[in-house]
Amino acid sequence: MSDKALEYLRENRDRLLQRLNDFLSIPSVSTDSVHKEDVRKAAGFLEDYLSEIGFEKIKQIETKKHPIVYAEYTNAGPDAPTVLLYGHYDVQPVDPIELWESDPFQPEVRNDRLYARGASDDKGQVFMHLAVFEAMMKTEGALPINVKVCLEGEEEIGSENLYDMLHERKDLFQADFAVISDSGMVAKNQPTILYGLKGFTGIEITVTGPDHDLHSGMYGGAVRNPIMALSHILASMKDKDEVVTVDGFYDGVEALTDEERKLIEQVPGEDFRKATGITETVSEKGYTPKEHTMARPTFEVNGIFGGYQGEGTKTIIPTSATAKITCRLVPGQHPDDIQAALEAHVKKVAPKGVTVEVKREKLSAKAYKVEPTHPLIQKAAESYTKAFAKETVYVRMGGSIPVVEWIEDIYHIPIVLLGFGTPEDRLHSPNESFPLDSYDKGMETLVYYWNEVNKK
Amino acid sequence: MSDKALEYLRENRDRLLQRLNDFLSIPSVSTDSVHKEDVRKAAGFLEDYLSEIGFEKIKQIETKKHPIVYAEYTNAGPDAPTVLLYGHYDVQPVDPIELWESDPFQPEVRNDRLYARGASDDKGQVFMHLAVFEAMMKTEGALPINVKVCLEGEEEIGSENLYDMLHERKDLFQADFAVISDSGMVAKNQPTILYGLKGFTGIEITVTGPDHDLHSGMYGGAVRNPIMALSHILASMKDKDEVVTVDGFYDGVEALTDEERKLIEQVPGEDFRKATGITETVSEKGYTPKEHTMARPTFEVNGIFGGYQGEGTKTIIPTSATAKITCRLVPGQHPDDIQAALEAHVKKVAPKGVTVEVKREKLSAKAYKVEPTHPLIQKAAESYTKAFAKETVYVRMGGSIPVVEWIEDIYHIPIVLLGFGTPEDRLHSPNESFPLDSYDKGMETLVYYWNEVNKK
Repeated sequence: MSDKALEYLRENRDRLLQRLNDFLSIPSVSTDSVHKEDVRKAAGFLEDYLSEIGFEKIKQIETKKHPIVYAEYTNAGPDAPTVLLYGHYDVQPVDPIELWESDPFQPEVRNDRLYARGASDDKGQVFMHLAVFEAMMKTEGALPINVKVCLEGEEEIGSENLYDMLHERKDLFQADFAVISDSGMVAKNQPTILYGLKGFTGIEITVTGPDHDLHSGMYGGAVRNPIMALSHILASMKDKDEVVTVDGFYDGVEALTDEERKLIEQVPGEDFRKATGITETVSEKGYTPKEHTMARPTFEVNGIFGGYQGEGTKTIIPTSATAKITCRLVPGQHPDDIQAALEAHVKKVAPKGVTVEVKREKLSAKAYKVEPTHPLIQKAAESYTKAFAKETVYVRMGGSIPVVEWIEDIYHIPIVLLGFGTPEDRLHSPNESFPLDSYDKGMETLVYYWNEVNKK
Repeated sequence: MSDKALEYLRENRDRLLQRLNDFLSIPSVSTDSVHKEDVRKAAGFLEDYLSEIGFEKIKQIETKKHPIVYAEYTNAGPDAPTVLLYGHYDVQPVDPIELWESDPFQPEVRNDRLYARGASDDKGQVFMHLAVFEAMMKTEGALPINVKVCLEGEEEIGSENLYDMLHERKDLFQADFAVISDSGMVAKNQPTILYGLKGFTGIEITVTGPDHDLHSGMYGGAVRNPIMALSHILASMKDKDEVVTVDGFYDGVEALTDEERKLIEQVPGEDFRKATGITETVSEKGYTPKEHTMARPTFEVNGIFGGYQGEGTKTIIPTSATAKITCRLVPGQHPDDIQAALEAHVKKVAPKGVTVEVKREKLSAKAYKVEPTHPLIQKAAESYTKAFAKETVYVRMGGSIPVVEWIEDIYHIPIVLLGFGTPEDRLHSPNESFPLDSYDKGMETLVYYWNEVNKK
């Protein structure tokens, strides 16, 4: 079955690339109201394409901002599984525009890479799915699976309306599993299964002392210094071995199995020192930097401020000091519990003479993880390996993709992250691009995958 | 001897007040180049007045900025002591001008207070000395002591040129003791001997990690967070009992004697909670807030910054974090040693994975202290008590007056701080004023003092 579709993709390569270029040429920048109509135009492009392929019930679901493109294909029959295919057609702004070597909305191929805003994130990967569906429909007259398509226009601005829609329209989006192609591989041509993402939560701590900045000569010795108080609080939350010393923080965290540690070890690692300029890596006692970034929870102070920050000296005791903290969570940790544990700790260690306020971050998310041995994952791995002629590696990622957590939380279905991006794609930066090699092999992977998925 | 001078001051009160008003009307704002000529005009006023009184060798010593007014009186003879009288004729800017209830340079009496910029700091107090000299000369034809007058025009901008001049012209300024009236009493009509000032030094600590802000999901777990590293460093420098935990910090600090503790206890204390809005005072273990502010060294973080400081959340590991620290020192502590001890501590506790840089503050000063039992101090106390009809209290101050430390360091002479300001004078703020009551009683104190000083 696959051969014909692959042949179709080869024969129609130029035409399909031209069509992708048409899609990429639409400046669907979701954050900028100037591009409101462009975003809608990109949604229209998808509607047209889905219609041509043979999808049904195609519609733009209106939201408070940009529409969600919905479509479905049910002709694989009631025995075939239904996949929820998620992607997004909005893109990041292009600033600073002067750093682009070619127009971000006039796609250009250089060194076998397609340069354009959205080439990798995520219009390119969305298009690959549609092209594969086209190839299958044109050559076989049918798809091997049922499909519900959910393509949003607000991913780059927080997916707030999608969040509501996923809750409100469970009838519409319910499926057997989900596939998302909005991520990458650990290295170009290195098939990568992303089987875990971290969750996310945060708090902001503000320590307040005197009601105005004080003369340190007049009041030093009578008044608790809010910056020093905050330093004591922060220092009590994570020790020098990078172990979080907050009661309950690690409660419920799954122990890392030997098997998983082996998987992690096999992932070609980024050279952290080279990428960041640090003198040496530091990670939680008992874990390698790769293990900690991928599979252990983290606690980071993202920002701190208080008192005088200008040139030279100002001899004050400042009125207050604030620290912003976020944590990346792993399976077993619930954001609400973590926030409660952090707040309880802060209140417990707060020294006398100051007032300590904790503000909880609203946008939290649980971690996501699927078993690497799950048949849907194994089939994805095999499809990758067949297309890229290389063994697949399994990785967990330190980052968070909120939509993944939402789909799991609301629909309780497995999610397969089939990403084809590469670390060199420069997402969100000038000169975003996507390797044509990955474009071709990625579609080949999808052809194999859809055919495999339907096999019992 | 005193009676005639006091009578003269009473009889000429209106005329002298008018003359003070003329002096205060000159906007001698040293920091603002617009007022360059006004500053010179104020110096000219002093020259004229000193000449009228009968001072000799009057001159404006030119500096890189504003002149120092010098004059001397040597007719008390070789057996009488010579006093170096220091003061300053420059004033702070008046911004925000809209908060003044009367023109800062059109002196006005309201509620028995003279409102004008410089009324208390320091033109008013300088004028009191000159009026007392006038009264003595007019009534006795001589002063009971020899005098060298040093009135600078750059106190409000750091006295940098005075510092050089005090070093270069030791011949000119050498004296047996110094008197400075540029401070205040702990409460209105509460005679106050300020017999100790704290010294001052500082450092700035910068912790640098990655060479750019990092995505906390990609690198959290591999990279030391500079803010957390800085928090650990700061928290290791002063404990929750407000004890500085830096090796060598307290080396050489004189123990507080029971006698001195009694003196401190007798000082009418400011209500720290009311003045600052704090929930409760906090001071070094074993010392009261008054003892700590007056007589124990302090360590304050004046400012801290690093990473994201805007609204909401930014999930980064920041490239660096900086803290500004200043210490107030007591006798026995040398600023250089303290800086070295702080830097050694920081280097010792700096965690791996980050680079820690320590910048030393240049403008440091040792503490100053004179024995409260010194005859020159005792005579001052008696003069105060006689004029104000109240027992004198003895205080040490948490603040620093650099010129005091310089005079002691260069000339090795006792310094008597004869301040007449009150806590309500609003120095450096809108609506600066000086009580006419303190003006009269202050001059009375000076008349007694100069007569007492010459008595064996």
